Amino acid sequence: MLSEFLVTEMARGGDADRLPLHRQLYEALRRAVLDGQLSAGDRLPSSRELTQDLGLSRNTVVAALNQLAVEGYLVSRVGSGTFVNDELPRAKARSKAHRAHAPVAQLSRRGTALSTTFCATQLEIQPFTPGPADFSAFPVALWQRLQNKHWRMTYPDMLDYSYSGGHAPLRRAVAQYLRMFRSVPLDIDQVIITSGTQQSLELCAQLLADHGDTVWLEDPAYWGAVKAFMATGLHLHAVPVDEHGMAPRTADEQRAPRLIYTTPSHQYPTGAVMSLTRRQQLLSIAEAHKAWILEDDYDSEFRFSGPPLSSLAGLDHSERVLYMGSFSKVLYPGLKLGYLVVPKRLVDAFKQAHYDLNRPGQMPLQAALAEFIELGHFASALRRARQGYAQRRQSLLEALQPCLGPSAQISGAEQGLHLCLRLPVHVDDTALVQRIAGLGLTVRALSAYCLERTDAKGVVIGYGYAPLVQIARFGPVLARAIAAELA
Amino acid sequence: MLSEFLVTEMARGGDADRLPLHRQLYEALRRAVLDGQLSAGDRLPSSRELTQDLGLSRNTVVAALNQLAVEGYLVSRVGSGTFVNDELPRAKARSKAHRAHAPVAQLSRRGTALSTTFCATQLEIQPFTPGPADFSAFPVALWQRLQNKHWRMTYPDMLDYSYSGGHAPLRRAVAQYLRMFRSVPLDIDQVIITSGTQQSLELCAQLLADHGDTVWLEDPAYWGAVKAFMATGLHLHAVPVDEHGMAPRTADEQRAPRLIYTTPSHQYPTGAVMSLTRRQQLLSIAEAHKAWILEDDYDSEFRFSGPPLSSLAGLDHSERVLYMGSFSKVLYPGLKLGYLVVPKRLVDAFKQAHYDLNRPGQMPLQAALAEFIELGHFASALRRARQGYAQRRQSLLEALQPCLGPSAQISGAEQGLHLCLRLPVHVDDTALVQRIAGLGLTVRALSAYCLERTDAKGVVIGYGYAPLVQIARFGPVLARAIAAELA
Repeated sequence: MLSEFLVTEMARGGDADRLPLHRQLYEALRRAVLDGQLSAGDRLPSSRELTQDLGLSRNTVVAALNQLAVEGYLVSRVGSGTFVNDELPRAKARSKAHRAHAPVAQLSRRGTALSTTFCATQLEIQPFTPGPADFSAFPVALWQRLQNKHWRMTYPDMLDYSYSGGHAPLRRAVAQYLRMFRSVPLDIDQVIITSGTQQSLELCAQLLADHGDTVWLEDPAYWGAVKAFMATGLHLHAVPVDEHGMAPRTADEQRAPRLIYTTPSHQYPTGAVMSLTRRQQLLSIAEAHKAWILEDDYDSEFRFSGPPLSSLAGLDHSERVLYMGSFSKVLYPGLKLGYLVVPKRLVDAFKQAHYDLNRPGQMPLQAALAEFIELGHFASALRRARQGYAQRRQSLLEALQPCLGPSAQISGAEQGLHLCLRLPVHVDDTALVQRIAGLGLTVRALSAYCLERTDAKGVVIGYGYAPLVQIARFGPVLARAIAAELA
Repeated sequence: MLSEFLVTEMARGGDADRLPLHRQLYEALRRAVLDGQLSAGDRLPSSRELTQDLGLSRNTVVAALNQLAVEGYLVSRVGSGTFVNDELPRAKARSKAHRAHAPVAQLSRRGTALSTTFCATQLEIQPFTPGPADFSAFPVALWQRLQNKHWRMTYPDMLDYSYSGGHAPLRRAVAQYLRMFRSVPLDIDQVIITSGTQQSLELCAQLLADHGDTVWLEDPAYWGAVKAFMATGLHLHAVPVDEHGMAPRTADEQRAPRLIYTTPSHQYPTGAVMSLTRRQQLLSIAEAHKAWILEDDYDSEFRFSGPPLSSLAGLDHSERVLYMGSFSKVLYPGLKLGYLVVPKRLVDAFKQAHYDLNRPGQMPLQAALAEFIELGHFASALRRARQGYAQRRQSLLEALQPCLGPSAQISGAEQGLHLCLRLPVHVDDTALVQRIAGLGLTVRALSAYCLERTDAKGVVIGYGYAPLVQIARFGPVLARAIAAELA
């Protein structure tokens, strides 16, 4: 029974060519515990039995069991074997129904909204999941060396909070990078190191808008930003996106914005690149309404055709743009370091509030990152990543070719780590995505990102995470599923 | 004309030693367009003319023009040359005057409040500054070894965000510590690793309270908490603190709380330890109003007389207490790891929202910390620190002896890293603190922590940061200054 479950789990992982066997077994066993296939207190077959049943090497089995023991899933009792830790909470049937029927725990209204709408789920990361980048090639050994160097020369201040917007060498490195590659004119002083875009957004919303003030968001929108604005009590006003990016209508101006949140380099999720005219228009609107533009320049690093468009911040003469980015796509997500560039007149207030609200720290990590950038490792990681992603993108584009036509067109493939296949408005893209999930592939429905509009249908397809070989292998599968829908 | 403008712009770029020439030219041309030096529809000199006028290579000029064309600043018309895109909105005159007269920063009301009231200042850290702990003895080499170990065995998951409330071994270690030392009954599942108390507080306020809801705060209060509640739009209701901790009056209940924030182990800043009766009272009030208690158990580690009182969370039978703490006092502040324990019924919502709002990470650091605790290093660091602080406290108490009397009494010296010298209500404690600052010593005025009350005067004196020798040397100086005030 158990070994069958494990074999099935390991087989359908779909990650067969990436994860080492002991990791696959680890995942399968963990799933067995979490799904209730194994219950708290259950005795496991011995490693010898598992070795035989699964046809794996003893080392593989032992490595997986050890890891699970370290993490507390399993406990060993001398002389009697290995058991599922009976301190584990009783496994819950993982069903959608569970969530739906969970007692509403007396959350506040915003708490309920925050924990039930636009929720990221820990999807099985499968080929074509939009969002994640591939950080498996991150130079861990080099990173460790740099960290060690800075820990060795650590003086007590480095262990303290960071008072002045972040470690100065890192702020300098960020300023140089942004001046050079994003035409953002700035002084080092204007750079604030944050724990990433979520914190940057929250800080902007807290300092620049009051409860009930209006934020213009792109429709369809990036969930993370939606959440940050919900949490800070703003009124969300949806502005549709077309092929030139955010497209404000005359009527929108009746709902005067206090903040305008935009992703001009590669609109999330449609992938539209904002035209220069549109950029100028947004800047004029911001000036007319004394509003602030929050420019989230995520994905600007990965441009595949043509030179990068310069940022909104680079066009801004009225100091109305706050520019933000993070290192998570080029380095790794868990790093939790990003940057926010604020106009000079806001610097003092932002640094003060950032310190008081967030007590930023992680200075040795910031120092290692500064040196990583200064020594050119960031640039080479970026170059390598760009090449790798370009191949994956090419492979995906080729695979999708057969299902393209007047009613199925690609948008947003010039840049970033995902593209969007736009479909006719009558298509039920949610159902399509579920059918595709049945094939072991993860894409997202464009409509799932929509705030108000009902005319945006399609599938958002990521090529950042899965290796080229998987894209080449599963791309045609995906294309056939989509073509079948359109037939 | 144009070429002079361009040469001047390129020369004053200040980036001469960094930006390649074509980028300098690109920037100068872009500026010419944006500043109105070139107007929409204007024809540009040919690339040959520009090459000659500027003394640049043809390739340089062509690269710059191409980039500007791609970005939409310029358009080429076959046979007639290159023009400034006439779809661009008319450039506005950028005058310095405009910048200079920019109104003061236009923060929102909450932004103004957040950046101007109850602000922590980066004080010269001098003897007796309340707040900071002494992390100069933190075992950096050991810490580095543990980090290296976990970086060496890092698998890609460890570089990703943390989806399930934090690294399981760390959550287990925290759960064991809290069960053992703080009598908090809990499952591992209930522990959420946050970036510290500020994030824990913010998450609680966002999920459990709506804008305008009331939070009861101790008066005088901890600034960090005040800020977190201001940022999340709550109505602050001040409840006075007496020698038994937070002391709700009948009238307070007319302002029904949604949240009650308290520091029962060692009230910040008075140092009062909450009595058991008061704890029971708070729990009853919370139950009656369906309110949530946020128990900030900072400083609970450092108790110098008597066994620790068990936590409010340990007394709570209605699952109304959320318990929080951090590692910054025992390890080091910049670590940015803390924990929040939530009632079972809130676990799913908190984990979901924590992930969506904060995208937590730093898993290798979490793994190192888990092992630091498991191997007993946390316990020994704590033991060492407690001994060291006990000596400093003793030295400070002895030094203050001469200025004690009916009108100057010490509160809060049983626990924590600071004590409070209460003074008569007519004393101007702010002026006293300034006179003490003139001696090169930093203490804080008790009145500076007050929300509403005007009867709490005194000086808050820290013994966490300065080494024993400094306390022994400067303690008498401090005592004389205070005695002079009272004379």
